[in-house]
Amino acid sequence: MKHVVVLGGGFAGLYLAKGLRHAPVRVTLVDRRNHHLFQPMLYQVATAALSPGDIASPIRSILRKSTNTEVLLGEATFVDVEDKTVSLADGTRLSYDYLAIAVGARHSYFGHDEWEKFAPGLKSLEDALDIRRRVLVAFERAEREPDPVRRQQLLTFVVVGGGPTGVEVAGALAELRRFALRRDFRRIDPGEATVMLLEGGPRLLPSYPARLSDAAKGVLRRLGVEVRLETRVTEIDAEAVHAGGWTIPSETVIWAAGNQVGSLLRSLNVALDRQGRVIVEPDCTVANHPELFVLGDAAAFHHQKEFEVLPGVCPVAVQQGQHAARTILTDLEGHRRQPFRYRDKGQLAVIGRGRALADFGRLQLAGFFAWLTWVFVHIFFLIGFRNRVLVLFEWAWSYFTFQRGARLITGEISPVAPRDRE
Amino acid sequence: MKHVVVLGGGFAGLYLAKGLRHAPVRVTLVDRRNHHLFQPMLYQVATAALSPGDIASPIRSILRKSTNTEVLLGEATFVDVEDKTVSLADGTRLSYDYLAIAVGARHSYFGHDEWEKFAPGLKSLEDALDIRRRVLVAFERAEREPDPVRRQQLLTFVVVGGGPTGVEVAGALAELRRFALRRDFRRIDPGEATVMLLEGGPRLLPSYPARLSDAAKGVLRRLGVEVRLETRVTEIDAEAVHAGGWTIPSETVIWAAGNQVGSLLRSLNVALDRQGRVIVEPDCTVANHPELFVLGDAAAFHHQKEFEVLPGVCPVAVQQGQHAARTILTDLEGHRRQPFRYRDKGQLAVIGRGRALADFGRLQLAGFFAWLTWVFVHIFFLIGFRNRVLVLFEWAWSYFTFQRGARLITGEISPVAPRDRE
Repeated sequence: MKHVVVLGGGFAGLYLAKGLRHAPVRVTLVDRRNHHLFQPMLYQVATAALSPGDIASPIRSILRKSTNTEVLLGEATFVDVEDKTVSLADGTRLSYDYLAIAVGARHSYFGHDEWEKFAPGLKSLEDALDIRRRVLVAFERAEREPDPVRRQQLLTFVVVGGGPTGVEVAGALAELRRFALRRDFRRIDPGEATVMLLEGGPRLLPSYPARLSDAAKGVLRRLGVEVRLETRVTEIDAEAVHAGGWTIPSETVIWAAGNQVGSLLRSLNVALDRQGRVIVEPDCTVANHPELFVLGDAAAFHHQKEFEVLPGVCPVAVQQGQHAARTILTDLEGHRRQPFRYRDKGQLAVIGRGRALADFGRLQLAGFFAWLTWVFVHIFFLIGFRNRVLVLFEWAWSYFTFQRGARLITGEISPVAPRDRE
Repeated sequence: MKHVVVLGGGFAGLYLAKGLRHAPVRVTLVDRRNHHLFQPMLYQVATAALSPGDIASPIRSILRKSTNTEVLLGEATFVDVEDKTVSLADGTRLSYDYLAIAVGARHSYFGHDEWEKFAPGLKSLEDALDIRRRVLVAFERAEREPDPVRRQQLLTFVVVGGGPTGVEVAGALAELRRFALRRDFRRIDPGEATVMLLEGGPRLLPSYPARLSDAAKGVLRRLGVEVRLETRVTEIDAEAVHAGGWTIPSETVIWAAGNQVGSLLRSLNVALDRQGRVIVEPDCTVANHPELFVLGDAAAFHHQKEFEVLPGVCPVAVQQGQHAARTILTDLEGHRRQPFRYRDKGQLAVIGRGRALADFGRLQLAGFFAWLTWVFVHIFFLIGFRNRVLVLFEWAWSYFTFQRGARLITGEISPVAPRDRE
């Protein structure tokens, strides 16, 4: 029986494994985590609206009915494409007939990896909890800070990158300070906190129509976010962000600009694009290796027009996973492979309470109806009945009470500056 | 205006602050965490039934309406009872007119602190997430382990201590392996895992009537827990637990035996009992210091008969906090202080799905009705409407589906033993 190895339990990997559920193959899915993460809502964990358990499900449970699939907790470190084996970090070697690499992306600091410790990105649950801790601790420290200059620095939050993640994080931070924390502090007014969104390009949400980019900027400004376009970051240190000639004193910076793919793909010795993604063939495989698929954020799939690459979003990953499963079935039946075709169902970004943007090609929405669409689409794609109920309840609760349910600081808290007080 | 400093945002500290809400005093509550934790349900986080956010609430939100109360994130390190000041770890000094120490307890390893890294205890959310990670990773590693002896070692879970926490953890682990994980693994049968409960004394739940101790043992045995009484642990290392002549190969040991109180109390230079608790006067203050209260788990309160000390449970802490607030009000009004009297409302311990023990003095229950009582009492005392709804939903979901909602492994995963596999 053919052995299909899948690296990564994100959307692409899961939909591939599910697509092979009734196929006469043996499937092994390898992930560094025991859970599948619903990344489109990760920013809500970072901004204390949801708990980690609300948007994650154990991969084993999701694939429980795929009796031909084994799930391994492990990290792939090397692929030998000639020998058709994958090595894991613990020394395990898996040989394969088909391999699908769907390991996603990490954030890229454009050659400035030293910025990462001051400006964490948002890809995993640990990242989200780290950002949540930094944000909430900043308010706690400001409450105890007698020096007004230091206090203002603690209450300045900078989001770098004006794509969907940056817009969503900035909107959520603006609401957090304005509503959820409003009455909890005695010395500071959390509503005074500054949220800045820095974007290097000329507009927010570059993948959306220009009209919606303007709408996003307008909504963010009404929420009190300071949006700066054409502002490239030149330096980040423990005290400030330097961008476009500005020095912005801030200790809480969130990185939402740029992706890059990990070292595993470099070990393949195949053509990569500038962000380290594998440039794939029309059937999502690597040139001359019809048994090797690269899917989701790890792949650069050139779409119709030559220079347009499919964006790193969830529907692309889902459809590529389904396509890879269909391709393997086609092979087994001895038929000819079909090229992958992306069916664009539109894009959605939420900015805040009752405000979102929707781009469905001809139909473009900004406001409450776009937000309702966002809510329904996300609940629909969220995996598991339990998570759907929990998230709906949390959202309803936040919507009506203006509160945030998951305001916990966990893990180590960095020491607070010493002060004498009466 | 008098300044009341409260150390600890557990039940005693919160109920004290709340009791002074309308009093003409200034209150400062200091806690190392930003959240109040509902400890009686912490074991449910450790066994993947609940998420951290379900049983914790930000202290600031709880005390939002106490406008005379300020909340500080910080750790008290030293109390100068002559000078009436408290020093925090970051150097802050607070002077007080009244001080209430309600800092709770940590687990005690009876002089063997080196066991802690092999056998973590269960006091904080971080402890609970650590135990959850260890338990779930043990199953993951067993799935990949070809050596049957090693595999059995990975699937042996030892709980040390037969008090309420130990009984609850052992019951929850037995159900986790029997129901929730049953169909998720391909190579191992999680139902084969061994859960052992070791108790040094002659019976489980020593604070309960003997009849209920026997009932607890019976229920645990029907769930497949191996209960060993009169079995004292002599050594714990990375590979095994040594107890009462036995060597039990296990890498997942949970410590639920013995409390001790932190170093802060030793700095007071007052009479402590063997577990490091402060021996308090009938009004919960320290001898010769009517302005210094010690409450909850940190206090040894001698109850009626001379040698009986009130147990470290939530109702004692709540009532002592309320009593301290009343005492301060009495002082301000110039009346005479009343001694603290504990109103014992009974005790409850849950063992598993639909099974619990209740001791209300004359009325003793074991089984489904005790469990229903447990559910209602705990939902009632849980703080916050949001948490109540979430926990009720999670329990209902677990009850009907036999699943666990919070099966996430977060944080660092220890490396898995290397193996070659086809």
